[in-house]
Amino acid sequence: MTLSPSAQLQLTEAGELRHFLTIDGLPKPLLERIIDTANSFVVVGNQEVKKVPLLRGKTVVNLFFENSTRTRSTFELAAKRLSADVLNLDINTSATSKGESLLDTLRNLHAMHSDMFVVRHKQSGAPHFIAEQVTPDVAIINAGDGRHAHPTQAMLDMLTIHRHKGAFDQLKVAIVGDILHSRVARDQIHALTTLGCQDIRLVGPNTLLPPHVSSLGVTTHSNLDRALQDVDIIIMLRLQTERMDSAFLPSADEYYQAYGLTRQRLLKAKPDAIVMHPGPINRGIEIESEVADGKQSLILNQVGYGIAIRMAVMSMSMSGQMQQRQNSEGKQ
Amino acid sequence: MTLSPSAQLQLTEAGELRHFLTIDGLPKPLLERIIDTANSFVVVGNQEVKKVPLLRGKTVVNLFFENSTRTRSTFELAAKRLSADVLNLDINTSATSKGESLLDTLRNLHAMHSDMFVVRHKQSGAPHFIAEQVTPDVAIINAGDGRHAHPTQAMLDMLTIHRHKGAFDQLKVAIVGDILHSRVARDQIHALTTLGCQDIRLVGPNTLLPPHVSSLGVTTHSNLDRALQDVDIIIMLRLQTERMDSAFLPSADEYYQAYGLTRQRLLKAKPDAIVMHPGPINRGIEIESEVADGKQSLILNQVGYGIAIRMAVMSMSMSGQMQQRQNSEGKQ
Amino acid sequence: MTLSPSAQLQLTEAGELRHFLTIDGLPKPLLERIIDTANSFVVVGNQEVKKVPLLRGKTVVNLFFENSTRTRSTFELAAKRLSADVLNLDINTSATSKGESLLDTLRNLHAMHSDMFVVRHKQSGAPHFIAEQVTPDVAIINAGDGRHAHPTQAMLDMLTIHRHKGAFDQLKVAIVGDILHSRVARDQIHALTTLGCQDIRLVGPNTLLPPHVSSLGVTTHSNLDRALQDVDIIIMLRLQTERMDSAFLPSADEYYQAYGLTRQRLLKAKPDAIVMHPGPINRGIEIESEVADGKQSLILNQVGYGIAIRMAVMSMSMSGQMQQRQNSEGKQ
Repeated sequence: MTLSPSAQLQLTEAGELRHFLTIDGLPKPLLERIIDTANSFVVVGNQEVKKVPLLRGKTVVNLFFENSTRTRSTFELAAKRLSADVLNLDINTSATSKGESLLDTLRNLHAMHSDMFVVRHKQSGAPHFIAEQVTPDVAIINAGDGRHAHPTQAMLDMLTIHRHKGAFDQLKVAIVGDILHSRVARDQIHALTTLGCQDIRLVGPNTLLPPHVSSLGVTTHSNLDRALQDVDIIIMLRLQTERMDSAFLPSADEYYQAYGLTRQRLLKAKPDAIVMHPGPINRGIEIESEVADGKQSLILNQVGYGIAIRMAVMSMSMSGQMQQRQNSEGKQ
Repeated sequence: MTLSPSAQLQLTEAGELRHFLTIDGLPKPLLERIIDTANSFVVVGNQEVKKVPLLRGKTVVNLFFENSTRTRSTFELAAKRLSADVLNLDINTSATSKGESLLDTLRNLHAMHSDMFVVRHKQSGAPHFIAEQVTPDVAIINAGDGRHAHPTQAMLDMLTIHRHKGAFDQLKVAIVGDILHSRVARDQIHALTTLGCQDIRLVGPNTLLPPHVSSLGVTTHSNLDRALQDVDIIIMLRLQTERMDSAFLPSADEYYQAYGLTRQRLLKAKPDAIVMHPGPINRGIEIESEVADGKQSLILNQVGYGIAIRMAVMSMSMSGQMQQRQNSEGKQ
Repeated sequence: MTLSPSAQLQLTEAGELRHFLTIDGLPKPLLERIIDTANSFVVVGNQEVKKVPLLRGKTVVNLFFENSTRTRSTFELAAKRLSADVLNLDINTSATSKGESLLDTLRNLHAMHSDMFVVRHKQSGAPHFIAEQVTPDVAIINAGDGRHAHPTQAMLDMLTIHRHKGAFDQLKVAIVGDILHSRVARDQIHALTTLGCQDIRLVGPNTLLPPHVSSLGVTTHSNLDRALQDVDIIIMLRLQTERMDSAFLPSADEYYQAYGLTRQRLLKAKPDAIVMHPGPINRGIEIESEVADGKQSLILNQVGYGIAIRMAVMSMSMSGQMQQRQNSEGKQ
């Protein structure tokens, strides 16, 4: 099997995860192993002592070039529960202000024997660039890069589906919102397709749908009521309200009329359909409060699963990266 | 014995602490147990290894809606010495800026399996509301809410008195300053009264005294020299200098003339009277430097006792909260 | 042997380190012991578990009165790898804004049973003042004070030289840049002289050289090409570009023409000469990129050695401070 360049970058020669940058190109057994590993960490989250020693003595640096307290908190907790030492760096306000280039900052952090960078960046591809060019022997975890990817978010959605619905191949999934600009949606489609899902419905105004959809089993819809017919899973995307003024989008009211998930609309889906959302939710814009807080909603469960998924990719990448380093040393 | 609603909220069915919100309504044996537990942590603070494993694997979130580096530092140190994982969140600058409601932020933190929130808020009653409505199975510790309460500060004062003067029932205590607006004074009066103190003198300008004092043994005074006569304990309140411009207050000079604790005035009290202050002190406004640094002053001792008290209420609340959770699960 | 007042302040009665404020006055065997101890921590940095329990249960406060994310990060990592509990305080934005004096802030931190302050301050002598007057039984580590000293930076340079060149007595060393205003250069000269180096060449424009150089074996030079003749070690100083506008300095271009370390100039030195720089580097101003990234450059190695040196002085000072405390208690 030939791997895509992106998959090659993320995997060791033995096929183990060593970076976690995008779901695009990762093989199905690896995604399944991430879900299995995360499942064991869900158990840890419910224990009295929520701590395992897998990253003890390792240094994890949260490199946030873009502010996101919420995402940083989940990575920080995940790292601490793995017993790592954590360093939080907000790059806007630090070294680079002394005129140091980004590359030099990264090389310095590497030289401090950092083992992992959790990278959040406005620019698509920044984590790839770091993993490929700058510090290939530090494990890089993508915590969101521009419009490109947010793979731990997509994988926590897969964990949620797996725990509540089991096998993916018979499931009908609707993804609703601004598909075109969503970094999460890209990864969700890759993950669902790889895991065997055969009916993925992308739903939104035509201006917010991707112009051509190539993957088998993926369809686009601009009528939400029809698209929800008989689905098992509804994944609502967060509407970037800062984009609301743009010509692409109707007003919040019009959007809610056409694409808000209301109790009424939820009835179109299967009676046991589950509702997901990455948070933070815009109540009354993309979802009705009663649905968000209702018994079909798994929105809060997803938060806990997010910690478990982050613990899984962090421990797996670290383990792969350590093996890779040992192999490289053996060869020299 | 019927408990007040506030006491019921703070206690488990077995009468153990599960939140620590206010001293109002807490029974005497519980206050005594907090003091005893804190006493054992004072010993820990003097050891070479200042660490106990009581909160290992627990997640404590410092939720500061109002900035207070000093208070946050003491809670952060207390939590770390109990071996907890600590997450500091300054709520002004984080999730809520993305338009998420406070309730959703709290539910999210809860879903991350946080075990305890240390809450500082400008609005009176905020920690109660969180404990009652939002996340009742997370232990809530009040780190100061508006003008309402600052119960760990009051309890560290009780610990100070207990360690240096023993039993409360024969003690004469003067509390001096802006009683009316002090969140600490409220809790101090509750604690002293509950612990058996029978002579509590509230001292300040008439405009800063509560209009009617109902508790037995509590009296109000506007002449400091007379009020200090024969007292064992002098508790100075911090003057909010930002309130100095208001019509309620005289100038700093006039205030110091009438209510500043000078060496001269201290002579009115018993020769072995102790002087306390929550800090930070305004030298030359509410207290003379020589008194603040003198041998009757326990101001710096109080800081260390503050860590011990915080360790005590954190470990006791966590233990009560865990029991409550287990009981609830048993019943379901 | 009589010790200088500064050395007396830093050492216990038994001659062990208890503060680390400046290299000036420290005896040669102690500097050698710091290097030896740091060498053992370099090994720790390469281990899978980069953690030793030497400071377990100790509280280290990073007291930064001046922002320096880079320096703070190295101390934070060093402390965490020694298993200490770390509290980061940015003093500008905290307690002092409530009108508390610096002295009261420090006394409060001391009263919280802090064991060590890592102090960064704009004002020369601030760490000395704290060690001498304010909190003598807290170990004080100088992380840079004004133009005075930055001793961990100088010692990491000594560690670098020792690891890559061995004994100091036969080495020829050039220090290049704004010697006059560099806090690092002062300490480097003290350290090199103490460790036996007999040929130290200070190189820079006449306006940036110290007016008279008293130490044996130290010479000043304004021609870089001639000064580099036959040297083993080239230490480039960072040019404070914020000072570029001043009358003391030529333009960046002119500076680079006269004092930039280019490949061409590097040929004047010995073929195995090593190039050092404290970072962050100004590429094309004080050093050519090809030299900074070339095989004679140890600039990135220095970063890792910096963690090791900080671990060494932190663990040695703590140990000395604990002994001193025990002796004081024994005498009382």
